[in-house]
Amino acid sequence: MTVEEKRDETLWFTERADEAGMGLQLRIHERLHHEQSDYQRIEIYDTTSFGKLMVIDGFVMLTDRDNFVYHEMMSHPVLFTHPAPKRVVVIGGGDCGTLREVLRHPGVEEAIQVEIDERVTRLAEQYFPELCDSNDDPRARLLFEDGIEWMRNAPDGSVDVIIVDSTDPVGPAEGLFNRAFYEQCHRALGDGGLLVQQSESPLLHLELIKAMRAAMQDGGFAACHTHQFPQPTYPSGWWSATMARKGRGFEGFREDDAARRGFETLYYTPEVHRGALAMPPFFCKATGQKG
Amino acid sequence: MTVEEKRDETLWFTERADEAGMGLQLRIHERLHHEQSDYQRIEIYDTTSFGKLMVIDGFVMLTDRDNFVYHEMMSHPVLFTHPAPKRVVVIGGGDCGTLREVLRHPGVEEAIQVEIDERVTRLAEQYFPELCDSNDDPRARLLFEDGIEWMRNAPDGSVDVIIVDSTDPVGPAEGLFNRAFYEQCHRALGDGGLLVQQSESPLLHLELIKAMRAAMQDGGFAACHTHQFPQPTYPSGWWSATMARKGRGFEGFREDDAARRGFETLYYTPEVHRGALAMPPFFCKATGQKG
Repeated sequence: MTVEEKRDETLWFTERADEAGMGLQLRIHERLHHEQSDYQRIEIYDTTSFGKLMVIDGFVMLTDRDNFVYHEMMSHPVLFTHPAPKRVVVIGGGDCGTLREVLRHPGVEEAIQVEIDERVTRLAEQYFPELCDSNDDPRARLLFEDGIEWMRNAPDGSVDVIIVDSTDPVGPAEGLFNRAFYEQCHRALGDGGLLVQQSESPLLHLELIKAMRAAMQDGGFAACHTHQFPQPTYPSGWWSATMARKGRGFEGFREDDAARRGFETLYYTPEVHRGALAMPPFFCKATGQKG
Repeated sequence: MTVEEKRDETLWFTERADEAGMGLQLRIHERLHHEQSDYQRIEIYDTTSFGKLMVIDGFVMLTDRDNFVYHEMMSHPVLFTHPAPKRVVVIGGGDCGTLREVLRHPGVEEAIQVEIDERVTRLAEQYFPELCDSNDDPRARLLFEDGIEWMRNAPDGSVDVIIVDSTDPVGPAEGLFNRAFYEQCHRALGDGGLLVQQSESPLLHLELIKAMRAAMQDGGFAACHTHQFPQPTYPSGWWSATMARKGRGFEGFREDDAARRGFETLYYTPEVHRGALAMPPFFCKATGQKG
């Protein structure tokens, strides 16, 4: 739900998570853009303290100020877990911020972004140009089509890492959170290949996380592991991503490569990565994940 | 600022952090209590999804649902860093949740809570009784007096660990964030003794954290280290505490004792502790802390 209100002569954007009994407000100067694309309602705001803000169907997608945590934690942990990721696919991720982080890895030979709504990317180019820095990288391919369909057509074993950087499991992204999709991902991955998907708040969405983990395993994945990070402009300010692996479990990650990564990060380090993997007891008890 | 509003037939409590350009809303059934104590305005709400909520001067203090993270991360990291904490003082902490966590450590011989406003504790006993579970422990002493004055009168070297669990550095807690107070803490601590203090949001309050760290070192502390944790009902959902040590630096913590702690925790584990110490590069760059 998007509510604009005038009070104390200031404007506030409000996202209410009614079922979670929680709401987030960001103070804004003005709304810069709004449109109904073929898929969803997209709005851009200029906030007083978080830079630009993109909202889809009333939900905060990203702000200038805090998107770095999400984009780094959706890409570097999974890429440093795979022994040598060369072919990477981002499903969704139309703001191009995840694609940019993926392309920081020199070993990546091809990074394909499959975003269903081209308008998200065009607006990101206009309002979040720094996230689109790598769109001209010769290794990048930007496709505007249905990620579920793309995955169905991907040759067996042709992908090393799949990053599902989607909106919440309502609307266009609903089909990205079920067994049928995970089976196709599993088939398209090579042995030891990895899927990672944003998996909502560890505090608010435990049931969704449990269902997602079960569906990943039903889809053929040998193991999964959820990691956590702060995300101040998402509900509860506490977010997660879940990795699933084909054919084998998780035995650490390439810590030495991560330490010598040779590119700048604002949130990610190997120590932060290790810390993010350490989930709290209440979470492990609910999901069956080892600490 | 507290705003109650009726919209869509639901009531919402709103805390606006105007200077941070951010606000938090919690959906409520009703306000159960409000009063102006000698020190501050205290309100208790019944929320739809976070259980009871305590608000002081318009700022969220705690909810039933998420206070466990804060209370565990204010107590267990510092207590497992000290080699053998026996005498522990909590400055503030009137809801008694930190005191309860401190008393889970069997080696603690005396835990003194010095809260200026007795009304906070009386309301906690009424509305958050589980946080007051340990108030009758023979090792507990509840004092209702000024923590700054108490610290000034504490004998030299008489305390092992000081936990400053206060409101924000405005109003009654202002005097807990400066060099004069830290000098008294330093004097009252034994060699290797530790102070820990809540230090606001790593994203929103970097300047405050830098000033606090500098004041701790000016006050005589040999080293300080900030750690992070989620706190969904505080601004940005991302919070921190800063430990300062007398006479020596930080060389790890008692990981084996933490692993064999013998009491239940919902958030804390030694792996979570290690992860919390790993602060992100943007933070380390701004504060000079090592990763």
